[in-house]
Amino acid sequence: MPSLDRVEPIPVADGTIDDEFWNHWIDLTRADLLEYQYEQLEESGCLENFRRAADGADGGFRGMWFADSDAYKWLEAASYVLATREDAALRRRVDEVIDLVAAAQEDDGYLNTYFALEEPERKWTNLNMMHELYCAGHLIEAAVAHYRATDETALLDVATALADRVDELFGDEIDGVPGHQEIELALVELGRATGDDRYVDLAQYFVELRGRDDCLEREFERLDEIAGYDPEDGGIAAGAREVFYEDGEYDGSYAQAHTPFFEQETVEGHSVRAMYFFAGVADVAAETGDEALLDHLESLWENMTEKRTYVTGGIGSSAHGERFTDDYHLPNETAYAETCAAIGSVFWNQRLFGLTGDARYADLIERTLYNAVLAGISSDGGEFFYDNRLESDGDHHRQGWFDCACCPPNVARLFASLGRYLYATGERRLYVTQYVGSSATATIGGADVEIEQASGLPWDGDATIDVRAATPTEFTLFLRLPEWRDDESVRVNGEEVSTAAVDGYLPLEREWDDDRIEIAFGQSVVPVEAHPAVEADAGRVALTRGPLVYCLEGADNERPLHQYRIDGESNFEASSRDDLLGGVVTVDGDATVPDLEDWDGELYRPASETTRRATSITAVPYYAWDNRDPGEMRVWLRGDT
Amino acid sequence: MPSLDRVEPIPVADGTIDDEFWNHWIDLTRADLLEYQYEQLEESGCLENFRRAADGADGGFRGMWFADSDAYKWLEAASYVLATREDAALRRRVDEVIDLVAAAQEDDGYLNTYFALEEPERKWTNLNMMHELYCAGHLIEAAVAHYRATDETALLDVATALADRVDELFGDEIDGVPGHQEIELALVELGRATGDDRYVDLAQYFVELRGRDDCLEREFERLDEIAGYDPEDGGIAAGAREVFYEDGEYDGSYAQAHTPFFEQETVEGHSVRAMYFFAGVADVAAETGDEALLDHLESLWENMTEKRTYVTGGIGSSAHGERFTDDYHLPNETAYAETCAAIGSVFWNQRLFGLTGDARYADLIERTLYNAVLAGISSDGGEFFYDNRLESDGDHHRQGWFDCACCPPNVARLFASLGRYLYATGERRLYVTQYVGSSATATIGGADVEIEQASGLPWDGDATIDVRAATPTEFTLFLRLPEWRDDESVRVNGEEVSTAAVDGYLPLEREWDDDRIEIAFGQSVVPVEAHPAVEADAGRVALTRGPLVYCLEGADNERPLHQYRIDGESNFEASSRDDLLGGVVTVDGDATVPDLEDWDGELYRPASETTRRATSITAVPYYAWDNRDPGEMRVWLRGDT
Repeated sequence: MPSLDRVEPIPVADGTIDDEFWNHWIDLTRADLLEYQYEQLEESGCLENFRRAADGADGGFRGMWFADSDAYKWLEAASYVLATREDAALRRRVDEVIDLVAAAQEDDGYLNTYFALEEPERKWTNLNMMHELYCAGHLIEAAVAHYRATDETALLDVATALADRVDELFGDEIDGVPGHQEIELALVELGRATGDDRYVDLAQYFVELRGRDDCLEREFERLDEIAGYDPEDGGIAAGAREVFYEDGEYDGSYAQAHTPFFEQETVEGHSVRAMYFFAGVADVAAETGDEALLDHLESLWENMTEKRTYVTGGIGSSAHGERFTDDYHLPNETAYAETCAAIGSVFWNQRLFGLTGDARYADLIERTLYNAVLAGISSDGGEFFYDNRLESDGDHHRQGWFDCACCPPNVARLFASLGRYLYATGERRLYVTQYVGSSATATIGGADVEIEQASGLPWDGDATIDVRAATPTEFTLFLRLPEWRDDESVRVNGEEVSTAAVDGYLPLEREWDDDRIEIAFGQSVVPVEAHPAVEADAGRVALTRGPLVYCLEGADNERPLHQYRIDGESNFEASSRDDLLGGVVTVDGDATVPDLEDWDGELYRPASETTRRATSITAVPYYAWDNRDPGEMRVWLRGDT
Repeated sequence: MPSLDRVEPIPVADGTIDDEFWNHWIDLTRADLLEYQYEQLEESGCLENFRRAADGADGGFRGMWFADSDAYKWLEAASYVLATREDAALRRRVDEVIDLVAAAQEDDGYLNTYFALEEPERKWTNLNMMHELYCAGHLIEAAVAHYRATDETALLDVATALADRVDELFGDEIDGVPGHQEIELALVELGRATGDDRYVDLAQYFVELRGRDDCLEREFERLDEIAGYDPEDGGIAAGAREVFYEDGEYDGSYAQAHTPFFEQETVEGHSVRAMYFFAGVADVAAETGDEALLDHLESLWENMTEKRTYVTGGIGSSAHGERFTDDYHLPNETAYAETCAAIGSVFWNQRLFGLTGDARYADLIERTLYNAVLAGISSDGGEFFYDNRLESDGDHHRQGWFDCACCPPNVARLFASLGRYLYATGERRLYVTQYVGSSATATIGGADVEIEQASGLPWDGDATIDVRAATPTEFTLFLRLPEWRDDESVRVNGEEVSTAAVDGYLPLEREWDDDRIEIAFGQSVVPVEAHPAVEADAGRVALTRGPLVYCLEGADNERPLHQYRIDGESNFEASSRDDLLGGVVTVDGDATVPDLEDWDGELYRPASETTRRATSITAVPYYAWDNRDPGEMRVWLRGDT
């Protein structure tokens, strides 16, 4: 049984990032993403839906039936930006959007523009598919973020009114769970922000009800009663129904409702839903202190990370149902690995980290951020991958926007809140969990402690951390030792530290005053192999360096990529290339390719005639792929493993 | 410019197979396939369509709109059987079916039960999709086979009446080509059987018109005029239309109509259509002596065999459109390699062989027969593969019948006519093209020559051929030297022959009287590799022995098949296993698999930690796969190439 060895991540408002690598992405978020996405909210009709709902219009809803959440995610991201810097123009725009949202709210607290405009008589009837509770969750998250950033309650009032309405109905008039989780974690946040335990109880209700037989049956009965939801009708829900029913009767696994939480042995179903669900369960565990919940979450985490995660940290192998499939089924060319699922994984891992202080969660957050999440956005911030393949023949490209536009605003809210993943505190403890240039303030043992970090990641493993306590204070500073490091050298005030590592950390116990920590993590190129049960990666290696996974692109390599082979004795070198992809470190190394000269027309020949010759490859960070002319890409290269 | 170095394959009626390997398949055809397929003709409604059409019924057509061809293919196969042995019961049944067919023919010669029953006013309007000419072609082939087998003209009269009607209309009232070729080669056969050149001219007309711009345009104009063929209508043609239009406007390539024959540089489109087309072109070349046609056919053959053919001889990489795709695109798990396309390839190759006497065509026929065709049928003859994958996770199985039941009767007519592929004659020449136990009679230099062959193929490379001339006659006997042989030893009347090989043959020139040839072709296990441009086979080898391609099946090998690796130094042994799969020679050999003991929960680890251990594999002939409990199969195994 794990103990709830809590740590408290430092909130977003208290950390400011100033990092050579991440500044680009955070500046993009502030300057471009929020602007661009706001324009999309207008263009897609999302904001117009709110206006029309406020006017009491009938029909004319535009976009996916859960489009309200796009506006809420934008508000959340914008609030995180406002938390870290003044921006009067952004603030005005946020206020305007909040006004639109508030005006669309109905007298009893109900708020969903799809139902308001299209099917007002069918509110709360199709929980499985119609995402009212999902949208409510995003509203609540945005409201809490806005309240914390501004101390204003304009949006929080809207959210609490809707949450109160949900609380009033559910468990009483209606018994059911949302088809897409999100409200669970949002309600816990609302409970924390307002101090009102009802919201946590309601989150717990949703967590506990999910997967109970009678719950799913009631859903289907309710659905069968509604002629309008007959898939034959081709209504707005028909597409969603197909996802459920294509392979026969729906067993609930798509939404982790196939069996109650404690009976789930493997991570199943739609991977974004799974991540949001498990994050919500972790939040409930944090508030209720229920160690059994945490224990079971950890076993699910182990199933995911030991059997169902791409080397990039991406999850969800199949586009069909955007879901987890089977253990070790990790196809590369058809990898789904949705950007939102990776972001959801960061959310879940951060909560597990908060509950346990365990470095393995921070390790996975780092790997996921630098690879699975970052690949989701183009280097100019203008285009996005919904699904992230690990191999492409050159036909898969980022797009400007999507009908189901969940990923772009999710990227924005993650980048805008990146500060919350860097440090955490505990009882006379300070954790440095991510090596990102930043400054932050923590309170430890009653004293304010200022932290200022400079980091060379991901290009080199050097970091400097200055710790300045308002009064000299004794506490232990835990430096996370990244899983990828070859070795580490840590000096405090110039003196090499010889402390032993403990559970993935280097614990530095002393009276901190005004001290400098100098860190050097060794970063060499490491070809990795996958577990032999992974068919897609059999006989293949992926090149990694530090937290980055590398890939080959056609732009840097002459031959079709399947012709390169990496041998066990191959040498690799890292080269800093300021001219390339906005400045990256490439990995250059030895490889062999088949001799083509020997072939003369035949399509098959005795393998004994084969000859290969030496050549070299140039690999670029996976996140940076598809930023040049279209071409082949592959992460898993042929090896001799 | 190649010369038309004609050879004359010995007709089916003059060769009788008695072969340890093939007897099983030919007996199946005679005893079971024809019976089973006749039952299917009744069950599927195919024969009932003829009855109803004869009765002048309206509507009620059953099956695919080209179902008539199933009856014709059955008649053709049955006729080949009747050509080689008396079978009174079969003969009666054939006569009954011929009566049904004849009764359904209209006064002007028209015959197609779909149009007769469903859309009598729309005859000849939708040549692209509705297959009237395709069905007519199969009727003609059956009629010629029946006439040659029995000397009776009951079916030939029906066929000539229909052919006359087509000849009357086409090039005059109607200008157009069929969407599915077949009538071209059939018309040439009809011309040969009747001595009437009109039919050859008509075949030439269809060959020359195909792919001309105005021809395709006229098709579309005609189609657009017919409201009933609007794909939105969901009529019987809508499904076929989707095949054309899914990727935008149809360019004709699906039916080799994208450009005229002489401008086609690569084999394109639906692979069965392509094979039937090229076979028809070869037939026209044979009758007209047009060497340019042959020359261009040979360049297309080279494109196909050097860039677009599976190691099994299978063709057509994509299920979408059942078609050829790009050079070197030969995916294994999604291989289409339709059984009918392989049969079509045999047809085309046999015609190229007839035109040139070139051994390479006989080589490909052998490879295709033993692998791509034979895999199409289960060992008990009861189930069929429509598409033949080269790798399966255990979910792909033969089926008893298909809505589009083209493959089973095609297999039957090929097996029933296998005798025509074994020997050929030329000016004082006798060719032994396939090593199959059989007896045949040829006329060479005016003398009857009897040939009697015993062969150990595919299990060993030994064969004995007795040649008995009615009077001692000087001619050259050309023994094909199979492409797969390691070496050969040939004795005539006990004396080793030291003649040099010429173009894939061993020419034995002598006065033949009553002589025995003893042949021993060396057969060792040869792992082959594919051209480096074939991505699907990169780093892989396929095991071959003699004409057979081998595969691994889960039933014989413990580990998931992707874990086995064949090294360059691997040793292989062939073992005769009477107990297995009706008696096969297995290939057993060295391989390595990853050590699983070293793995402890991690999904990825440095490749430098990898270790493999020695093990062995057992491979079975590819044609015999999926005759046991469902499980994995793969032809291309990991190698170190």
